[in-house]
Amino acid sequence: MADPRPIALDAFGGDKAPEVILEGAALALAQGVPVLLVGDTDRLRGKVPRGAEVVHAPEVVGMDEPATTPLRKKPNASIRRIFELLRDGSVQAAVTCGHSGAAMACALHVLGPLPGVDRPPLCTVVPRKDGGQLVLLDLGANVDCKPQHLAQFAVLGEAYARAVLKLPTPRVGLLANGEEQGKGNAQVRAAFSELDAIDFAFVGNVEPLGALRGECDVLVCDGFVGNVMLKTVEGTIEVAGHVLKEELRRRPDALLGRWLLAGAFRRFRQRTTYDSVGGALLLGVDGVAVVGHGRADARAVASAMRYARSCAAAGLVAAVRADAARLLGPRNGR
Amino acid sequence: MADPRPIALDAFGGDKAPEVILEGAALALAQGVPVLLVGDTDRLRGKVPRGAEVVHAPEVVGMDEPATTPLRKKPNASIRRIFELLRDGSVQAAVTCGHSGAAMACALHVLGPLPGVDRPPLCTVVPRKDGGQLVLLDLGANVDCKPQHLAQFAVLGEAYARAVLKLPTPRVGLLANGEEQGKGNAQVRAAFSELDAIDFAFVGNVEPLGALRGECDVLVCDGFVGNVMLKTVEGTIEVAGHVLKEELRRRPDALLGRWLLAGAFRRFRQRTTYDSVGGALLLGVDGVAVVGHGRADARAVASAMRYARSCAAAGLVAAVRADAARLLGPRNGR
Repeated sequence: MADPRPIALDAFGGDKAPEVILEGAALALAQGVPVLLVGDTDRLRGKVPRGAEVVHAPEVVGMDEPATTPLRKKPNASIRRIFELLRDGSVQAAVTCGHSGAAMACALHVLGPLPGVDRPPLCTVVPRKDGGQLVLLDLGANVDCKPQHLAQFAVLGEAYARAVLKLPTPRVGLLANGEEQGKGNAQVRAAFSELDAIDFAFVGNVEPLGALRGECDVLVCDGFVGNVMLKTVEGTIEVAGHVLKEELRRRPDALLGRWLLAGAFRRFRQRTTYDSVGGALLLGVDGVAVVGHGRADARAVASAMRYARSCAAAGLVAAVRADAARLLGPRNGR
Repeated sequence: MADPRPIALDAFGGDKAPEVILEGAALALAQGVPVLLVGDTDRLRGKVPRGAEVVHAPEVVGMDEPATTPLRKKPNASIRRIFELLRDGSVQAAVTCGHSGAAMACALHVLGPLPGVDRPPLCTVVPRKDGGQLVLLDLGANVDCKPQHLAQFAVLGEAYARAVLKLPTPRVGLLANGEEQGKGNAQVRAAFSELDAIDFAFVGNVEPLGALRGECDVLVCDGFVGNVMLKTVEGTIEVAGHVLKEELRRRPDALLGRWLLAGAFRRFRQRTTYDSVGGALLLGVDGVAVVGHGRADARAVASAMRYARSCAAAGLVAAVRADAARLLGPRNGR
């Protein structure tokens, strides 16, 4: 039976909040996702989509404030309240498109890490050439990592791939600048033996090209490198799309060809646009916490809500908890 | 007056050497680039394209041998001899598609670093959305770097952009996971003040998306991150091209549209394919040294030859030497 509880949505997180968030909430509701909007009810009055619940949280954290503001100075911030509702069991999952540093700080503080997890990573999925999905982590939660953190990310990402993507034996790769063992920087070389000692399908070092072709299902790296990789994918898609558009418009007699292929171009854009997921998941905390793009539009907000619900419905947290205990448990003493 | 000296080409470097290299040499000659082939003359007999000079160097370094092999065990290796010919003034520049670690080791050992340069980086150019070119370095010569190495890369890349791309005031960016000062990992945060203290147009932290859109002309990072970024660009182009092809072939009635747009798709592939340059340049050594892809085809080999000649013709080494002395000179004492 589907969980009847709603997904908490931070109404005041994002560059165009609350308008775009409310549009996204309406879209999510229309798609069958139960929504609980969290924010200043005075400012939301008359704007709440039919069917959405509302919880009052009057304070807002600005993008220029420190990540710790909701923990230290604004206890009634919407970006904090969504995770308290999740901790208390009122909602299935929590979504914000607000200050990502503050979101991670609140999720970790309020929900707490799962046993064996020192530093929860952000993860998302990237479409691969072979039609599969690549789980990429960390995307920027931890820019300076030790080898054992990469090992933890690997276990969390592997549990995600089994629970959410339903892969029976996800192949785990370590992002490096070459496939041979011994490639990589000092951090990666040290992490190799950590990953190799874990009881899962470790396929060794994987290069970005190989990962995008489908050589692994989970790709592990530190948050600085993962952020560069994800944003390079986004940037390259943007450049390639722009170049394609320029070339297609170069000659007026190409108009008919463009018209004939319009459907193909539309599907190409859909398949290579990254708001299909709508946000990154903070893995390794005790609850499903999704952090969306600050510049998310209504469609991306609704995608993030659906994504959060699918992770909750897949029993992600219980699966990750079990795997972390099994694979990281005996290693905690270090 | 154009330099009449040839470009030295390692005939036995690359996955399909010497056949593909010889085809590339013929192509380069046809395009007006004087070629000096370096390799075992017995094995080249009867295969040398008309107009190419040949120098004998009987030893070959395999891809599975240590990078130091041509320095320690095979002094007559073709991958070493090309740089000796360059050092002695017999050629304008040297090109190899062989073992890249061995190529860098030989170039550094034989040519020597320019004053002020501790660790020569590999650099290339990537097409930007605005039609410009992004100079990206280091691409993998130095996977573990100190902040002062990033500062040296910046000076070398800026000199390249002025000398070869003819930009009067290249904008230099530091690759990071956010634009605000204070973003980045520990290495990037420390490098920020180093770059900020140099007398050139430093624009601060730049994200991959911003760099690909045109926010800077030179993007600096360590060799691990730069390698990941370059290979992610290549991988994303490959995935996007594959998805586009799949969508275009999905319906048979799209055939006419594809035929009408064939020219546009061809130009799109040309503009987004990275063998337009054909290789990476080892910056900061005393000579123009180009390291091509091991899997380079004949066209890529010819591109690498033209690229090497254009760098030599632009007076790259003298420009880099002058800038390194001016901008790094007083800092050498550290």
